[in-house]
Formats: sequence, structure tokens, C-alpha cells
Amino acid sequence: MELKFNLKGAFKTSADPSGAKDVIAQYIAEANETTLTKGAPEGQGAKITEWSIVENSIEVTIESGRFVRAHDAMIRLRKPLAGKLGKEFHIGIRGIDVKEFTIEMPAEEELDNIRIPHVTNITNVEGGIKLELEVGESELENRIPDRILTLMEEKVKAKDYGGKAEHWQILWESEKKEHTFHGDPTQEMMKEGWIKRGASRGQWIHGPQSTRMFRTFERIVLEELLEPLGYREMIFPKLVPWEVWQKSGHAKGVYPEIYYVCPPKTRDPEYWEEVIDHYKVTHEVPTELIKEKIGEPIGGLCYAQCPPFWMYVQGETIPTEDFPIKVFDRSGTSHRYESGGIHGMERVDEFHRVEIVWLGTKEQVIATAKELHEKYMHIFNEILDLEWRKAWVTPWFMAQEGLTGLSEQGEAGTTDYEAPLPYRGEDGEWLEFQNVSINGNKYPSGFNVKCQSGEELWSGCSGVGLERWASAFFAQKGLDPENWPEEFRKRAGKVPEGINFL
Amino acid sequence: MELKFNLKGAFKTSADPSGAKDVIAQYIAEANETTLTKGAPEGQGAKITEWSIVENSIEVTIESGRFVRAHDAMIRLRKPLAGKLGKEFHIGIRGIDVKEFTIEMPAEEELDNIRIPHVTNITNVEGGIKLELEVGESELENRIPDRILTLMEEKVKAKDYGGKAEHWQILWESEKKEHTFHGDPTQEMMKEGWIKRGASRGQWIHGPQSTRMFRTFERIVLEELLEPLGYREMIFPKLVPWEVWQKSGHAKGVYPEIYYVCPPKTRDPEYWEEVIDHYKVTHEVPTELIKEKIGEPIGGLCYAQCPPFWMYVQGETIPTEDFPIKVFDRSGTSHRYESGGIHGMERVDEFHRVEIVWLGTKEQVIATAKELHEKYMHIFNEILDLEWRKAWVTPWFMAQEGLTGLSEQGEAGTTDYEAPLPYRGEDGEWLEFQNVSINGNKYPSGFNVKCQSGEELWSGCSGVGLERWASAFFAQKGLDPENWPEEFRKRAGKVPEGINFL
Repeated sequence: MELKFNLKGAFKTSADPSGAKDVIAQYIAEANETTLTKGAPEGQGAKITEWSIVENSIEVTIESGRFVRAHDAMIRLRKPLAGKLGKEFHIGIRGIDVKEFTIEMPAEEELDNIRIPHVTNITNVEGGIKLELEVGESELENRIPDRILTLMEEKVKAKDYGGKAEHWQILWESEKKEHTFHGDPTQEMMKEGWIKRGASRGQWIHGPQSTRMFRTFERIVLEELLEPLGYREMIFPKLVPWEVWQKSGHAKGVYPEIYYVCPPKTRDPEYWEEVIDHYKVTHEVPTELIKEKIGEPIGGLCYAQCPPFWMYVQGETIPTEDFPIKVFDRSGTSHRYESGGIHGMERVDEFHRVEIVWLGTKEQVIATAKELHEKYMHIFNEILDLEWRKAWVTPWFMAQEGLTGLSEQGEAGTTDYEAPLPYRGEDGEWLEFQNVSINGNKYPSGFNVKCQSGEELWSGCSGVGLERWASAFFAQKGLDPENWPEEFRKRAGKVPEGINFL
Repeated sequence: MELKFNLKGAFKTSADPSGAKDVIAQYIAEANETTLTKGAPEGQGAKITEWSIVENSIEVTIESGRFVRAHDAMIRLRKPLAGKLGKEFHIGIRGIDVKEFTIEMPAEEELDNIRIPHVTNITNVEGGIKLELEVGESELENRIPDRILTLMEEKVKAKDYGGKAEHWQILWESEKKEHTFHGDPTQEMMKEGWIKRGASRGQWIHGPQSTRMFRTFERIVLEELLEPLGYREMIFPKLVPWEVWQKSGHAKGVYPEIYYVCPPKTRDPEYWEEVIDHYKVTHEVPTELIKEKIGEPIGGLCYAQCPPFWMYVQGETIPTEDFPIKVFDRSGTSHRYESGGIHGMERVDEFHRVEIVWLGTKEQVIATAKELHEKYMHIFNEILDLEWRKAWVTPWFMAQEGLTGLSEQGEAGTTDYEAPLPYRGEDGEWLEFQNVSINGNKYPSGFNVKCQSGEELWSGCSGVGLERWASAFFAQKGLDPENWPEEFRKRAGKVPEGINFL
């Protein structure tokens, strides 16, 4: 089956256009050969197959394939037609009505019942599916039918072939190391009184010992990487409203993993009296009642950490000589609704990350990523003495939109750093404990940031997840400072005393 | 009007108790003089005014005043009555039914229509109000009527006399200082490119310059106060579930200012497909639909910062010699739904704070607070050179439960640090930029933390709000390092270059 659009619509006119019938007929015949074929391969333009004058309007039926789509054809016709009617007959075109709009598209398997905005009906037909749309003039102008088609094509592709596989290609691998420790570091840290589970899902409270380790990792990143490479610290916001995720692309797919944030509908104490009274009498928090009294979600908790940075440069033009711009943030927590069950510190709902962001021309961004890779290699080999590898994977900015495969911008993509966790055994899954991403022009384009020279801007980011570093390091080295590499031990200092319990 | 309880209830029996009529009559006459008067002043006990045998039950009507409340009387009667019936007649008591339960209480003004759990009707009567309750056996046992009464008495008090005023009593005041700067520091910081508004309400993005200032404040607190006084750093969670606020007392009143957090009902991608499709077609986030697809709020964003710490020590007994325990956290943001309108950095919805917590005997906690006050005085006088004062105010732990006045535990309470903001003029409101609180036994008791020796534990906390420090300091000193005190200037170093825009 070929892609096929069928639109029955009308140009509403300011007066009865019957007197212009011959001119209209002539124009339509002409348009079928010119306006509606422009840009399409021979014989594959759109075509007005029927037309008539009905009251104060000109009704047309347009059929098309993929090249000049019926809704684009309708828009293309409007202005020249208005010209003909206006000049000679003083009749204006008041607007466009869409009476019927169907799209037929190929699909090998049937699609289950799904609800798409502006789609009133989906039927499985021979060799494909047929969509019936309910759209008006503004939807045509905003190319809603194209968005619907793209979405449906994605769905059909996923259904027909399954998703493209996650990409994974090894780039570098350290030598294999003898691990003297084979325990689960989370269990060990709990046993030693370094951490306790928090009251919420996938959340930990860190005692003085664990906190010292996190701060040591952070200081290593500061002293060995951020300061020598000239990164400047900023403070990125941690509550992320939709606007940010719309521009960053996360609004396309991140919903299953977000902790949503809803504000109270009002601060008026009287409005909340019922909730307070309920609590004081029952000592139970009336969560159902509260859900009624809070507003719709305004966004969610920090998920990817760098998107809120971009509001700082949004819509701005930056002097050419100021690039590359290199900044970082370590001002708060990130939160993900992770899959259920009890996990250790390697998979948490609330975590701490140093987020590194850079911005410049393509060459600058690639060179900056290279510098980072070198520093990380130094840290993981000479200071933490880890067994690890790195791999070129599906970019995170695609994964977080629900996409797989690789970026179309060849040199854009994500490098994951992975480490074996000895307690998982020889064939156990390695842990991604770090990444470096070149995000192409995605963010400068999404947030409309320009370089003074007019050159295209690219950006990159790299997340240092402290829970992940701790999981990799303590899984390989254990908790006893005796077994830590000297370079780490001297930076960590004496492990502080924890809080003791009887 | 005197407080008056009237309960009509029944003891359900395992067989017809008619045969035991005389024994019951004798017991009730006796109980009216003994069981139901115990602990009450002469003549003010509860009284069974009527009783009868109806099918398999003994119905009683109990009247009482405030001392032996009718619902307590009912509970008191059960066991001895069961003894009499069991021994001689082999009849058991199966449970308690409450058929009618009213409370009459004094009030000078009428109460508006309010909804209280287990209260079916509230009527204004001569000299007071009358509550009709719908309760069962378990509510009697859980003393729900007492909680309802307490709540109503609070409401009546608030209505009759208005709330007690906020307490404020000056403790210390610096000398008046000449301020050479009179600008609004937030405006100035925006103009100089130090900060920009974030995308969410009351939220800022801090550029390298402002971030350096925050980190300098933080380092001053670390080097001048936390390290010399032996505080250990911890990492407190930042998503706060109800359980924590139930124990900390915040669940009694904090609702109007919380940013609520709701998880997705499931991570199943199919469940979210409709939302994703809607976004991809319309480019609008369907917040109404999302609200249907998320769960009830599980809690909220960090509000007071120290409550989640207490889950670490909850239910534990700690060796006597380990006290005082002194810890701090600076691992993330706090969020409050502040009153509307545009504010500067002195009142924000998202802010950064170093939270200091200590725990020990009453004497230790008071002495620890004193040490802190001394260090703060050193910092504000010798390093920041501020004009400031401190005052004894309504404790924050009371204010956050909607209470006013002062703590009943005499030496417990909050000291606020306040600074004038010259741009607000001579009579402008001073800014609370810091506090030190002695919280009495509230937290150790709420979270059930014990000292090995059995001595009562107290605790304290002190929040260093970096936005507040910045608002006070830059309001008095301005942004030009030339006008900063030398001790601050040398710690801040050269102000880093910001991100430049054309």
C-alpha cells in the first residue's frame, strides 16, 4: 500500500462565488498541473479530483501521496485562488473548512486500539491502516496531520519490526584486575553503619563515612578535572517545569520515570483546614483529599540535571570568542521512578551527581569531550585503580525520548563508562557508572542559543553519579582502607566515625 | 456552659443476659460510685443514667464532664462487667456499639460550617456548640473523641480570642552601620549578569559569579564553624514522605506551602503512550490527563531539611558518651510554595541551605547552641561586617504546625538573626537571614530516639540559608568587591567571569 491522503474541504468565501465559476474551473485545472505538483516527482503531485460551488464556498476534494500532501495542497491553493477571486470579483476567502480527512498508510500488522488527538477513527484495511482525522484550518497550518503521520509511522515500525536494538560498541578496555573483595558494597555499607535506607522508595541516608566518600569523589573531579580544564560552577534549578522538558525533548518520552510535582491550589489556610482537621483527628494523612486540593503537575523533579541550565542561555547570542563555555552544577538531587523491588545503591530513585556541560562549535565540543575522556582515564586508572571499559552507545538524549539506534549527526552520541561488580560473578552485568555525551546541535537548537559568528553550536554533557562511582569503587575495593589504592586513600583521609547504636 | 459528654451505647453479649439482670443492676450501682469516679474530683465522675437489656446486649446511657469522659467510662466498664457475666453466667462481651455520642462544649461565637472526621453534625446551642459523633469501638479505644475535642477547643479559642500573637523579643543588636549601598541586590545581580530567573516560580539560575558567593558563604560556615566545632557531614534525603512529617509534626499544618510529589501509577510504557502521543501531535503537555495517571501524593519536596535526618536514628538507643551528636547536610534544595507576586532572592520557592543538627541532653543541647551563637557572631561581625540583631521568637517547630506563642519547655525556642536591608528604607522590615533553634524533646520523642543512660534527649537545629545570607550581605555591601570587608573579599577571591550575552 502507498501512503494516500484524501481531503474533502471548502474555501469559505465572502459572497456567492457562482459568477466566478469559469475562472475557478480554469484555475483548478491549471493548479493540478503546476501549484500542486511543485517539488514532487513526475506524476506524484496532489490532485483536485472534484470540486463544486455550495452556498458561499468552494468545495474541493484533494487526493495525494507523500510528496505534496493534501493538507499542504489546500494551503497552497488558498492564496492564488484568493487572488483570482479578489481581483476580478471582489470576493474574499474567509477561511478553510475541513469536512473529511483520511490518511491511508501501509502496515503489516494490525494496530490495537489507541487514542491519538484529532484522530476520530483508526481502521485496519487491506495492507495497512486508515486514519480519519478531525482537523480545522489551524491544524492544517500547524502541520498536525504530518505529526500524526510521523507518530503512526513510528508505531507501525515498532510493531512490524520491533524497536531497533540498543547500540553498544566497545571503545576501550582496561586490563583485567584481580579483585580481592567480592561482597555487595551496599550490604557491606549497611552492615558497617555507613548508610541506612531512607523513608522513601530507593532512597538512602548517608552517615558521615559514606558522605566523606562522596565528597572525596567530588573533590577528585574538582581538582583533577574541573579546575584544570577551566570549568566554572553554576547552580541549576532542581524543580523542572514542562517548558524546560518541551525544549529539551524530554516531554516526548520521559513520563514513566518522573516524580511529578504539584503545587497547592492555594496557600489559603482555610482551604487546607479540612486536611489539617482530618490529620489531627485520625493521625492519617488524607492523601485522596489532598490530591483533589493540589493543582495539575507543573513538571517534575530534576531528572537529567542539564536541561534547566539551558534556560540561562535561552534565546541569547554569545560572543564567538567566549566559546567553548564550560560549566558544572552539584547543587542538588536527581530523582527517577526506577523499576520496583529492592535495589542497592547502584540503582536508586534519589541520587547525587556532578553535572558537566559544555557548549561551542562542533570541533570545540568534540575536542572538549576528548579532554574529559583523558581526565577520566587518569582518575579511573591512576586514582581509583578500577577495572573498566567504555562503549559507544545509544545516546542518552535519544534514549530519554524513547528512541534507539544512533544519532543521525555522526559524531554526536554517548560514551558509557562501565565497570564489573565482582559480587555479580564472572558473567555478571557491568555497571554504567559514568558517561560523556556529545549532543550535537540538539540543545542550542531546542533552546535557540546562537553564536555571534553564525556558526552552528553543539553541546555536550557528562554526569558524574556519586552513587554509581561508589557502587563501582567499593564493589571492586571493599570498605577497608587497607585495600584502597594509595591515591584514593590519601585523598579520603581517615574515615570519620559514624553514629553508633546499641 | 460546662463540657458535657453523652454516650448511648451497648455491650454486645454472647447470649441473652436477662438472667443476670440483678447482678448487672448491682454492678452498675456500684460502678457509679467507684469505677466511674476514680481520678475525678468529688461528684464529677461519669454516671450511667439509664440502662436496659435489649436482645443480646446491655444498653447504657452515660453522662459525664471533662474528668472521666463517657467514652473512657465505657471502656472502664467493659472488663469488670465481663468478669461478672463470665464467672457466674458464662456470658461473654463481644464488643461495644455506640448508638449516639454527643459532646457539648462552651464557645462564645458560632462556628462556621466545618467538616471533621467522625462528626456528623455541629449545632450552635445556647452558650456553646454541640457535636454529634459517629464512632465505634476502635475509635473509643483510640481516643478519637479526645482528639476531636482538642481540635474543637483550638478552633473555639482561635475564634473567641484570635490567635496568640507571634512572639518577638530582642536579645542582641549590633551597632548601627553606615551603608554606602542602597540598591536592591537582586536587581543589581540581574543587571550584572550574576543570576537569571528560572523557568519555575520563585526560582533562580545562578551564574558563576553568584555561585562563587554561595560557595564562599558555605566555606566560611565550614571553616569557621562546622570544622572547629566538630560537626560531621551527612547526606539527608530530599524527597520527604508523609511518614517523616507525621513524626516531625509537620503533618499538623504545613500543607499550604508544600510542593507535593506524586509518582507515576506505573512505569509501563503502554500506560503512558496516550500522553506521549498527545504531546507528539499537539506539542502541548496534557497536564489534566497526567494528573489522572499519577498516584496520590506520597509527600513533598524538602521543606525544613532536618526531619529526614531523624529516620537515621529513629527507634535507636545511642551510647551516652557519644553525645552531643553534631551533624550537618548541604546536599540539595529546599522548596516552599511562597505567596504570589514577584519577589527577589530574599523570598524564593527554591533555595539552598546548610542545615545543622545536634542532639544530646538538655544541657548539652543548650551549650551547643551557645557555641553556635558565638561562631555566628564572629562570622557576622568580623567576616561579613553586617548590621544585624537577634531575637527570641515563636519557635519554628511551632510555627510550622500553625501554632503561635512560645514553647512550654522554657529553654526551647528559636532565635532569629535579622538584618536591615538599606534599600527598604529606614523603617523597612528587617530580613530573617538565619536561625538557631532549641527544639526541646520534640524530635527525639517523635522519632523515638533514646539515650543509653535513660536521660531525656533534646535536639537543636540551625539553618544557614544561602539566599538569605546573600540578600542581607549584598543589600548592605553591594556587588563591588571594593566595598566588601577584607575578610570576605580574600575568601571570595576574584569574582569569576560570567556568561556574556550580546
